[in-house]
Amino acid sequence: MGQGDRIRTFIHGFDEKLGGGIPEGLIVLLAGEPGTMKSTIAFNIIYQNALREGRAGTYVLLEQGRDTFTRHLEQMSLSPHDVENKVSIVDLGMIRRNLDGMADHTWLEIFKMYASNLKRTLNYDILVVDSLPVLEVMARFENPREELFQLFEWMRDLKATTFLISEMKPGSEDFGKNGEEYLADGIIHTKMERVDDANIQRRIRCVKMRGTSHSPNYYTLIFQNGILQATRIIAE
Amino acid sequence: MGQGDRIRTFIHGFDEKLGGGIPEGLIVLLAGEPGTMKSTIAFNIIYQNALREGRAGTYVLLEQGRDTFTRHLEQMSLSPHDVENKVSIVDLGMIRRNLDGMADHTWLEIFKMYASNLKRTLNYDILVVDSLPVLEVMARFENPREELFQLFEWMRDLKATTFLISEMKPGSEDFGKNGEEYLADGIIHTKMERVDDANIQRRIRCVKMRGTSHSPNYYTLIFQNGILQATRIIAE
Amino acid sequence: MGQGDRIRTFIHGFDEKLGGGIPEGLIVLLAGEPGTMKSTIAFNIIYQNALREGRAGTYVLLEQGRDTFTRHLEQMSLSPHDVENKVSIVDLGMIRRNLDGMADHTWLEIFKMYASNLKRTLNYDILVVDSLPVLEVMARFENPREELFQLFEWMRDLKATTFLISEMKPGSEDFGKNGEEYLADGIIHTKMERVDDANIQRRIRCVKMRGTSHSPNYYTLIFQNGILQATRIIAE
Amino acid sequence: MGQGDRIRTFIHGFDEKLGGGIPEGLIVLLAGEPGTMKSTIAFNIIYQNALREGRAGTYVLLEQGRDTFTRHLEQMSLSPHDVENKVSIVDLGMIRRNLDGMADHTWLEIFKMYASNLKRTLNYDILVVDSLPVLEVMARFENPREELFQLFEWMRDLKATTFLISEMKPGSEDFGKNGEEYLADGIIHTKMERVDDANIQRRIRCVKMRGTSHSPNYYTLIFQNGILQATRIIAE
Amino acid sequence: MGQGDRIRTFIHGFDEKLGGGIPEGLIVLLAGEPGTMKSTIAFNIIYQNALREGRAGTYVLLEQGRDTFTRHLEQMSLSPHDVENKVSIVDLGMIRRNLDGMADHTWLEIFKMYASNLKRTLNYDILVVDSLPVLEVMARFENPREELFQLFEWMRDLKATTFLISEMKPGSEDFGKNGEEYLADGIIHTKMERVDDANIQRRIRCVKMRGTSHSPNYYTLIFQNGILQATRIIAE
Amino acid sequence: MGQGDRIRTFIHGFDEKLGGGIPEGLIVLLAGEPGTMKSTIAFNIIYQNALREGRAGTYVLLEQGRDTFTRHLEQMSLSPHDVENKVSIVDLGMIRRNLDGMADHTWLEIFKMYASNLKRTLNYDILVVDSLPVLEVMARFENPREELFQLFEWMRDLKATTFLISEMKPGSEDFGKNGEEYLADGIIHTKMERVDDANIQRRIRCVKMRGTSHSPNYYTLIFQNGILQATRIIAE
Repeated sequence: MGQGDRIRTFIHGFDEKLGGGIPEGLIVLLAGEPGTMKSTIAFNIIYQNALREGRAGTYVLLEQGRDTFTRHLEQMSLSPHDVENKVSIVDLGMIRRNLDGMADHTWLEIFKMYASNLKRTLNYDILVVDSLPVLEVMARFENPREELFQLFEWMRDLKATTFLISEMKPGSEDFGKNGEEYLADGIIHTKMERVDDANIQRRIRCVKMRGTSHSPNYYTLIFQNGILQATRIIAE
Repeated sequence: MGQGDRIRTFIHGFDEKLGGGIPEGLIVLLAGEPGTMKSTIAFNIIYQNALREGRAGTYVLLEQGRDTFTRHLEQMSLSPHDVENKVSIVDLGMIRRNLDGMADHTWLEIFKMYASNLKRTLNYDILVVDSLPVLEVMARFENPREELFQLFEWMRDLKATTFLISEMKPGSEDFGKNGEEYLADGIIHTKMERVDDANIQRRIRCVKMRGTSHSPNYYTLIFQNGILQATRIIAE
Repeated sequence: MGQGDRIRTFIHGFDEKLGGGIPEGLIVLLAGEPGTMKSTIAFNIIYQNALREGRAGTYVLLEQGRDTFTRHLEQMSLSPHDVENKVSIVDLGMIRRNLDGMADHTWLEIFKMYASNLKRTLNYDILVVDSLPVLEVMARFENPREELFQLFEWMRDLKATTFLISEMKPGSEDFGKNGEEYLADGIIHTKMERVDDANIQRRIRCVKMRGTSHSPNYYTLIFQNGILQATRIIAE
Repeated sequence: MGQGDRIRTFIHGFDEKLGGGIPEGLIVLLAGEPGTMKSTIAFNIIYQNALREGRAGTYVLLEQGRDTFTRHLEQMSLSPHDVENKVSIVDLGMIRRNLDGMADHTWLEIFKMYASNLKRTLNYDILVVDSLPVLEVMARFENPREELFQLFEWMRDLKATTFLISEMKPGSEDFGKNGEEYLADGIIHTKMERVDDANIQRRIRCVKMRGTSHSPNYYTLIFQNGILQATRIIAE
Repeated sequence: MGQGDRIRTFIHGFDEKLGGGIPEGLIVLLAGEPGTMKSTIAFNIIYQNALREGRAGTYVLLEQGRDTFTRHLEQMSLSPHDVENKVSIVDLGMIRRNLDGMADHTWLEIFKMYASNLKRTLNYDILVVDSLPVLEVMARFENPREELFQLFEWMRDLKATTFLISEMKPGSEDFGKNGEEYLADGIIHTKMERVDDANIQRRIRCVKMRGTSHSPNYYTLIFQNGILQATRIIAE
Repeated sequence: MGQGDRIRTFIHGFDEKLGGGIPEGLIVLLAGEPGTMKSTIAFNIIYQNALREGRAGTYVLLEQGRDTFTRHLEQMSLSPHDVENKVSIVDLGMIRRNLDGMADHTWLEIFKMYASNLKRTLNYDILVVDSLPVLEVMARFENPREELFQLFEWMRDLKATTFLISEMKPGSEDFGKNGEEYLADGIIHTKMERVDDANIQRRIRCVKMRGTSHSPNYYTLIFQNGILQATRIIAE
């Protein structure tokens, strides 16, 4: 792992604010309220890094099925077919349904098994977990803070740049329930900003990024013609 | 299921904001505080899709009886009689009262049984559950987040476009208590906006919709002469 | 029960906002903070409907004794004596004290017994429960949401227009604790509005009313010379 | 108990807002944050009604000892000695300490015993409990809402006008924790209002009063030369 | 205990607002957020009353050790050595560490033992407990409200003017968790006020004081050259 | 330990506000929301004090691994190699993984063992724990407030100036969950301030510091060219 290598987010105008991107090997929380394009942002990172940098990626689905997700991505001009030899989309729900005879495998074990095996075979550089709260629920943690701490330690050993998608409650500034926000090496926050009575804008911001001297400011997040962009907010 | 087929909401001015409607097969949360016309919006989708598109629909009642609901719809110029060969209204409360000898059937089993059977016989394209919180209460979940996750997986297999009506507390921005907001593929939010000391307007907004590049903005929701409309908010 | 028959509230200026009144047979939450005249509003509906429409009514007291209540009503120019052959006031507290030998009757059973018997003998059109929270406390629900759901189903079978008085915390917008706000067919909300540093006005609003195309706006609630009135709010 | 008889509060300018005073026999919550002179207001009612109307009164102390309270009253020019043949001050803490051999008496039983006995011997018209929250704590209620309901029923049978002092948290609008605000027949609310960066005024308001057509507005509460006054708030 | 004797706080400009000081024998909560000089205020009362009035005092430390505290006081020009024959500083933590062989003594017993013994030998007029929340934690109350009530009764019997330091959460207006605010005879509140984007001022206010007609207003709290001062707030 | 010796923070412009620095031997909470450079501030204190004052320091990592942290520091121009003979960085996670055969050592015991041993061998003047919440979680406290109190007593005996990094929730003013804010001798607070719709500034403030007459005001925290600075906030 080269000192100083960075994974670009390919959100135009945002990587410069991060000193070029995210330091390799970090675990980054991608946290935001519903509708702030977290899945699109995360897959876009995998997609563009596969297409342009030749990096392998793995996207683990827990909330939705692969069909819905694929259709979503195609609608967003990010077709998985374009990168199919570099990117693996794992539909954990379907896998578990097919493992009926193996009832002793918990969700967390299945997740770890697939994450490990694909690391060995595909040797991905980027891992996305969509989403962390669902993984936490399905894992049935008894001591959430402690077991989450151990899960983070386990993920660090994967030596991949990892994005954990986390749903925030609208209006809340709480990045996580069980200390995710200080276990993570970085936090990227997306939100809805009500700019006036009628209009709502999506915003993005880097809250924290270890090994990086970054701007903490908000930018407007725009998706147009298959391209994500972070632009300066025009004050009135 | 044709890629790209969309179910129109028949709220005038709103479908365009959704890229033509809701992608077929999604599970959509229709969440709002009391009095924001959620039942009317949901039945209107079934009603207009039956009348104009020939689509079959099923409306599952848990909060109110069929009589009250029918009277309500007639008052709203959406008489169930107009679409009776395409639309089935299921009064789950009455069904359960008639199942006294079958006490081993829980509410959730009855719901699933009816939803499955009607899918087989009526082959509905659209399913409405009115409301999800009542279903959750009656189902007596022990691990709500996990069992809800499994219910969503079960509903996905129905291959219908599903609307789950969810009651929000006034003043709250919380779309669900047990992670409904990230399990759902889409969220349509209705609310009361106090525009001045005396006047309140109903508002509608698409918060999230997988497979759709939608506007996140608020629109004024108007019901007039049997027609639902979403209009631009006139700023002062 | 004639389709379209409506029970007038006899709050001047308010019935027009409800399309003439409340559809017969609905269960309506009359919710507001302390001091917003809920009991007066509810008894006034029974009183005026008895006097002017010849409708029978039953008012169930749980919070206060009959003497205090009668004195209150006389002070408000709504003397129960004027309508004594049409209206029954049930003092549930006194009844229970007299049932010492029948200790196996719970409050909820006594309430149901009286509500049923009076329906049979008096055949009331309008029922008021003052108040729902006290009934809920005394009923000692173990699963409040579920048992409340069943109580609402039981009340629907009475075929009366029912008003459930519910106390709200000042400053709260929460109409109920156990889902009352979506079980009810209608919600009428009363509140205190602090119009300036010194002055407070009472306000009334129809939040929700099934089978009715109603205004959601606030009106000033005034009581003068024995008459309740809802007037437009004069903006500054 | 004469219909229409009212107990004056002897807060100058406030009785007129209550239609002359508080209807005899009501149970009134006197609720406010620390420092709003609740004890002074309550004893002043007993003191002035004894001195000027010849009414007997009983003041039950739970928070402080009789010495501290007496010294406080003398400082306030409301010396108990002036009314000692009409007014009894009961120091429940001291009584209980002297009842060591009677350990089976709970606080609530001792309170009831003293309240009953003094009613029989002194036949007081006015009873003050200072304070209700301490009585609730010491009574060790298991089902607070239900046992409180029964305590209110018991107090109603005393046939006295009863003032229950209740401490509110600063900034809270919550008059009670266990439904006191709807069990009580009346609520008088005292508060601190921060009028600017430096200055704080005490305010008083009648929130609710059964049998009374009262103003819900706020008044400035002033204590000067042994006299309590409620004056109109001068808007800037 | 002379009627009317008062303990001066020696905060310049504040004693006049209290009618000369705090009535002897009261239990006063000195509550404020971190950094508002509560310990300095409390020791200053003991220090100045020893130096100028010859009154004995006892300061019980639970949060910090005697060394840190002494160094703090010297830095503040309030050296304990100046008053060492009148003032005792009790380091309860160190005492308990030295009591290993006496493991059956709980913290509360040790506190009571020292408070009683020093009362007998030193006959202090003023007692400070720094801080009440730590004492409550260490006492391991099972029924905090009830046991606190009994602790206050026990403290009243010491016949000292007692100051209980209580930590408040920044931004909270909650003087205590277990009813301390109504058990106490007086409350002095210190806070941080953010006067503009950059500047913060310390404020002091007497919220409640039995036996005293006091101002409820805020004053700016200043510490300069070993002197505490409460000055009028200059409005803009 | 010389009376009056102070540890400089080496945040330019901040030490003057603290009377020259932090009194030796204190336990200081360094509390702030994610992204406010707490780790950088804490290591900078150790780094500069080693480089310029020849003081030994120990930095205990619980949240992140040594590699990530080292890379972060190098990026910040604070390379551990510059001070490697004076400063020890302890990666507690890695240590524990290597202690598999010693499973009876809890995290807290390991922490104490390393802190004690390094005190004996390195005799550090400054200790940083990054972070306290993780230590608390891993220690599995049963009575957090009480065990934390004892941990603070244990740390005081180390006779080092100790910095405990504590994560705050964004928007919260709560420095700790278990009374950390009153157990600590000092609190330094870092926060994000949203200065307008787009821009966010980091701020720093000394909330509390025993033995120090300090300013409670906010300063803008800037990191540039390897130097931390606290500058006056320019009001608009």
